[in-house]
Amino acid sequence: MVWWRASSADIDVNPDLASERAAPSFCVESLTNLLDGSVEKTRVRRYVVSTILKDPVFSKENHYFKTRQERYEGAIRNSFHLKQKIKELGWREDGPEGEVIYRAMGGELALNIHGVFIKSILALGTDEQVAKWIPLANNCNILGTYAQTELGHGTYLRGLETTATFDISTQEFIINTPQISATKWWPGDLGKTCTHAVVLAHLIIKEKNYGMHPFIVQVRSLKDHSPMPGITVGDIGPKMCFEQIDNGFLMMRNICVPKENMLSRYSEVLPDGTYVKRGSDKINYFTMVAVRVSMLRAEVLEALMKACTISIRYSAVRRQSELKPGDREPKILEYQTQQQKLLPLLATCYAIHFTTCHVNKVYDEVYGAIQAGNFDSLPELHALVSGIKAYATEICSNGIEVCRKACGGHGYSLFSGLPSLYTKVTASCTYEGENTVLHLQAARFLIKCYAAARSGQSLPHSVAYLSSPISGACQASSHTHFLNPDVYIKAYQHRAYRLIDSAAFKMRNLVQSGMEQYAAWNSTSVELVKASIAHTHYIIVKLFADVLDSLSSFPEIQKVLKSLCDLHALHGIFTNSGDFLQDGHLSGKQLEMLTEAYLGLLSLIRRDAVLLVDAFDYADQQLLSALGSYDGNVYYNLLECAQKNPDNKKVNAVFENYLKPHLQSNISKL
Amino acid sequence: MVWWRASSADIDVNPDLASERAAPSFCVESLTNLLDGSVEKTRVRRYVVSTILKDPVFSKENHYFKTRQERYEGAIRNSFHLKQKIKELGWREDGPEGEVIYRAMGGELALNIHGVFIKSILALGTDEQVAKWIPLANNCNILGTYAQTELGHGTYLRGLETTATFDISTQEFIINTPQISATKWWPGDLGKTCTHAVVLAHLIIKEKNYGMHPFIVQVRSLKDHSPMPGITVGDIGPKMCFEQIDNGFLMMRNICVPKENMLSRYSEVLPDGTYVKRGSDKINYFTMVAVRVSMLRAEVLEALMKACTISIRYSAVRRQSELKPGDREPKILEYQTQQQKLLPLLATCYAIHFTTCHVNKVYDEVYGAIQAGNFDSLPELHALVSGIKAYATEICSNGIEVCRKACGGHGYSLFSGLPSLYTKVTASCTYEGENTVLHLQAARFLIKCYAAARSGQSLPHSVAYLSSPISGACQASSHTHFLNPDVYIKAYQHRAYRLIDSAAFKMRNLVQSGMEQYAAWNSTSVELVKASIAHTHYIIVKLFADVLDSLSSFPEIQKVLKSLCDLHALHGIFTNSGDFLQDGHLSGKQLEMLTEAYLGLLSLIRRDAVLLVDAFDYADQQLLSALGSYDGNVYYNLLECAQKNPDNKKVNAVFENYLKPHLQSNISKL
Repeated sequence: MVWWRASSADIDVNPDLASERAAPSFCVESLTNLLDGSVEKTRVRRYVVSTILKDPVFSKENHYFKTRQERYEGAIRNSFHLKQKIKELGWREDGPEGEVIYRAMGGELALNIHGVFIKSILALGTDEQVAKWIPLANNCNILGTYAQTELGHGTYLRGLETTATFDISTQEFIINTPQISATKWWPGDLGKTCTHAVVLAHLIIKEKNYGMHPFIVQVRSLKDHSPMPGITVGDIGPKMCFEQIDNGFLMMRNICVPKENMLSRYSEVLPDGTYVKRGSDKINYFTMVAVRVSMLRAEVLEALMKACTISIRYSAVRRQSELKPGDREPKILEYQTQQQKLLPLLATCYAIHFTTCHVNKVYDEVYGAIQAGNFDSLPELHALVSGIKAYATEICSNGIEVCRKACGGHGYSLFSGLPSLYTKVTASCTYEGENTVLHLQAARFLIKCYAAARSGQSLPHSVAYLSSPISGACQASSHTHFLNPDVYIKAYQHRAYRLIDSAAFKMRNLVQSGMEQYAAWNSTSVELVKASIAHTHYIIVKLFADVLDSLSSFPEIQKVLKSLCDLHALHGIFTNSGDFLQDGHLSGKQLEMLTEAYLGLLSLIRRDAVLLVDAFDYADQQLLSALGSYDGNVYYNLLECAQKNPDNKKVNAVFENYLKPHLQSNISKL
Repeated sequence: MVWWRASSADIDVNPDLASERAAPSFCVESLTNLLDGSVEKTRVRRYVVSTILKDPVFSKENHYFKTRQERYEGAIRNSFHLKQKIKELGWREDGPEGEVIYRAMGGELALNIHGVFIKSILALGTDEQVAKWIPLANNCNILGTYAQTELGHGTYLRGLETTATFDISTQEFIINTPQISATKWWPGDLGKTCTHAVVLAHLIIKEKNYGMHPFIVQVRSLKDHSPMPGITVGDIGPKMCFEQIDNGFLMMRNICVPKENMLSRYSEVLPDGTYVKRGSDKINYFTMVAVRVSMLRAEVLEALMKACTISIRYSAVRRQSELKPGDREPKILEYQTQQQKLLPLLATCYAIHFTTCHVNKVYDEVYGAIQAGNFDSLPELHALVSGIKAYATEICSNGIEVCRKACGGHGYSLFSGLPSLYTKVTASCTYEGENTVLHLQAARFLIKCYAAARSGQSLPHSVAYLSSPISGACQASSHTHFLNPDVYIKAYQHRAYRLIDSAAFKMRNLVQSGMEQYAAWNSTSVELVKASIAHTHYIIVKLFADVLDSLSSFPEIQKVLKSLCDLHALHGIFTNSGDFLQDGHLSGKQLEMLTEAYLGLLSLIRRDAVLLVDAFDYADQQLLSALGSYDGNVYYNLLECAQKNPDNKKVNAVFENYLKPHLQSNISKL
């Protein structure tokens, strides 16, 4: 069935896919419930998804044929319609429906940064400011964005150039982007939509710079939507994906905003120009973590799960070449090389899923503590989330490309759904913290903890292993030993420990030999990134294994997840073997055994592969893929997609304008 | 300067980029000549490039704002205009200008498969067929395509389903695509343009299948371009890139073509249905190799060179964060992690460049031998090219993404030029032989040679090392020893030997334990792919080092290329260290030394990095990048690009249709 058909009633499942589902070794529905969190959560998710998918306003029938402008208009239309619908149905964005809605919409929404605008006023505004602006924003009487990043400045806030200079005589701030590189750049909803912005700018009072502060600035007229005087605003142009989002630029020339427009929960300017700081804004730091946590499941993992669903179903119906001489062309999923591409990624989906569950749990705990005024666990949470965000976005986006290429030529067609999964998710390697920067932040925490442990301090839970001495060599003496989580968890822990230890050692030596601290850090940064990756990988492997222990009442599911956990761990060692061999934790001989165990898992999991993606429970209309539909009628779907191409129904102007004179000049010879 | 400006006369080079060029350690122009092959070749290339770039018909001013249909029409227009221009200027497509033209056009051409149509008639047609069809095709009185791949069938020719059944009574072939999966799918120029196709189909005579044969089929009317009776033809829809190409589908229902339309140089059907085979069609096999050789430089390496140019220039002008406390934000190229991303890729450009030079040389030799009737070297050439095609396409496309992400958020804008470099070149991992399939073909050759060596036969040059016993442990005892090509070449050779040996050993064991040959092959295929990669990597490292020896009359260039060669080799060991550690060829201690040498090379090459990409000598209009222009005025360029966006000049219908009612319902509160 192609995704724009609401019903598949009269279409048979491709026998090649039906046979994969004929004798399941576990109950797929139970696994779906486990992934959702409960039977009830599965019910709610399906209810929300089906309610959204059957609404004709949200139809994606011509999705891959739309222009950028059509995508943008559709996203605006969807956003207003969804708000209305949520109100009518009594759904709560912070309730059980909330987290599912965005996933069900598949990102075809605008006004996302309007939400950030609202949140930043709630977080940074005084009670009066909240009372003034929030009702207007909630009713969309104003539409906002959050303008921080500049053309010449990204992650490093202190580098921003926009200024807000306080004029005591008028009690106004005068906001300026002093040169081209100060142009605000990237904010979503800014390009063509919003009327207001929370602008981050250096606060200047009497020529003294008080650092970055947030100001509400009107950018467009509410009457005719034209830019306000002194404002230059527009769309930054086409991107690799996100056609529906109007990322924008904003230049401000002597824009005067009243004193009340500085969001002043944490700091205020008095009429005489006195600057007053109030309380701690550590909570901002927490907000950044919150965004990273929420994107992990809803944007990053989601994309890899869809890509695995599409590519594994396709690999079970695509037949190609010859394996056994004389036999029918086999399913490409029978090839070990195809299994090696897709099945470790399937295992990665599960690994990252359980990791995000854990991160959400820790996040909730830390949030609770923070509300009680205790910020102690924030650095650990920040480091954990930094490492996992960087690790997961990298592995998921690279993984989607592996899935796409594993579908051969058809993976290159937009109809496969795979190109846009990639071009969208790869942005997450950069936004909300560039991955290398995040790994280095996580590494800074690891190095700090390592030093603390050396001086006898106790360490937070996730890094507690740095307190004990490094473990000895691996004791495995047959390939089956590598199917023991204790063995591989220890290997990952050993690797992380050694890389952290070795980076710390190198830095200390460089400093002792006279290098300045900052230069020693930079000279070690390649190794520090490696250390952060190794630590994160260890955390993920361990969390997956911990989940297995909790599943004893679902033995079939426990069994298949155990194999996935093993596969994920052994694949990681197989592909990063140098890290485990370098100091002899593993011997060459042991790596051979591990390879045997790893390759054995591929053929084991191959049997359940289709069921393991079925358990992700995506409707065809969510996958938007001619290759990944539940019924597996891929060639029929591709052809139907192609025939719907509006270009195929138009007269081709090229014939009249270019071809005809050539084609008809010698027609008698034919 | 942005790329649509023909002159940069009045624009200053960004001082951050000027300073990189202030004190070159080598003559950039000489290096450019070396890359081109000679001073004269540089001259010709510049003449062709500038002639093309200054032609207003070929202007790319609004490149990133064009729709798919506009790109297609532009490519058709370009193609006809270019043919005319080539004729007028007396350029020869097989002459010195030829190879440069396509690169200068940056792929914005259609009718590429019309060229394949012509070549296949020349190669497979009889003299009469050539005499009939070639003049028509050369004059574009007919426009052809080459239709082989089907919806359900790719690389494996025997799996194709289209049939051509000989009807003795009418002396015609009746051509059919018997079911959906037999639909011809992908041929370029088929979707909206061509009138004829060389169709690959199973030849059936008196119910006997004689295998795949080529037939000329008319698909559209020359009068009005409508599909011929029985033909269903159209465009297959949007892809990840190649918007300008109308890849198409073709269904044929009882299409009758005269007997003369079977291309019959190598086999013929007599009027009574007798099938006659003539001579060998090994030359076809060679044609496939020829296509792979030609794409390496013109499509694959070209893209990585451009990506390195863009990202390295940008990294020399982008300033971000803080390195030394209190100092100005440093150029991001000062960060070791940024160097680690970009500089090994820069080295890879040079490594692959010299590899393609070598491959071209071998190709010419083999072609000469084949013309003299000697096909002996074809299997070696085929294996060599298979491995290098798979290796280079993978490393170049992955590398471009590294370059893109290394440019942060701006790399995600189409204006950076990087997204389309990637989305285009990644297709090369699949077309002209899927990479895993190619590595397995190369591995089959390696395993065969390995066995031949065991039985005392002598081996072709590129695999001769399989005849000698495997080398012993590496003797390096300080980090400087790793700057000796003999040391790392030996390491790469050792690794390739061991992986081939170990795959052969595993297969033999599996067969001896009772597994069938095909199953043993499949069970070893992950390791066989690794072996092919290792062999190819060894060849590339060795070829680069060989080039150094020939450069003694250019000592400065020899010196900088030596560092690049070292970097390429050591980076490969650093990132694949397990392969070198596993059997103890390197010890963990040696790997530490190697890491030190490797990191040292990063800061060494960083000094010349901008000059080393300048030497690639791309005009701004070829890079199509706001980030990569020679003058480095990146923020100015980005802003100018955004302001040219036609969307920014249109009235936004969304305001009237969606926003206005909300924005104006509460306007009094503001």
